[in-house]
Amino acid sequence: MDGKSAAEVRRAAAFRVALREFARESEHAARKARLTPQRYLLLLLVKGAEDGTERATISELCSRLHLAQSTVTELVNRAVEVGLVRRRTSANDGRVVYVELTDEGDRRFSEAFEALAGERRALRKVVTKLGG
Amino acid sequence: MDGKSAAEVRRAAAFRVALREFARESEHAARKARLTPQRYLLLLLVKGAEDGTERATISELCSRLHLAQSTVTELVNRAVEVGLVRRRTSANDGRVVYVELTDEGDRRFSEAFEALAGERRALRKVVTKLGG
Repeated sequence: MDGKSAAEVRRAAAFRVALREFARESEHAARKARLTPQRYLLLLLVKGAEDGTERATISELCSRLHLAQSTVTELVNRAVEVGLVRRRTSANDGRVVYVELTDEGDRRFSEAFEALAGERRALRKVVTKLGG
Repeated sequence: MDGKSAAEVRRAAAFRVALREFARESEHAARKARLTPQRYLLLLLVKGAEDGTERATISELCSRLHLAQSTVTELVNRAVEVGLVRRRTSANDGRVVYVELTDEGDRRFSEAFEALAGERRALRKVVTKLGG
């Protein structure tokens, strides 16, 4: 392994260390907002829908998370039960059902999300130096 | 949440999606080189030691991984048993023991590491756009 590759390995190692730190802090922020890491991720993907609508179908969530329909459905069902999200039928197409955040879900998501601003900055700093 | 924050949430969601993709590909590359994800991480942190020596003490590994001494010791012991790393006493200080890669460990680490070059590039691209 030449000098260039060795530096790349060091950057990749530093990146993994930063990633683990980010995961730890992220879990901590979620739990402080009384969210499991999995529910925080669900709220993030609904709120951060690619098209800016702040809502997502089960299929969209399955595709982005690479999870089975049954897994995502169960995750959404439990989040509905505890009042974090609700289902809403599309006004344009009665066959399409969206998941969206409730006010309570939005409040708790925002609390965790804002607490992580510094961590996102720190991680971005490490990754921009990541060799590839 | 204002427009700026909404865009930040979308970027953070895209980042989480990319991170999960990276973790999946990383595990796949490790397994192809007959390494568990945990052993790949161990080899990466030894090879990518911050000081460029390509070796690390158990305490250094504990500190970077935020893992207990017993956990890291066990991980290293198992990696020694399967011939991926070896322990070597410091030439300067007989109380200091380093972990370093064996030729076999180096070969398998490099195989997985090189397979992930494209993934590191892709992830870096997403994170540089990450708001925060």
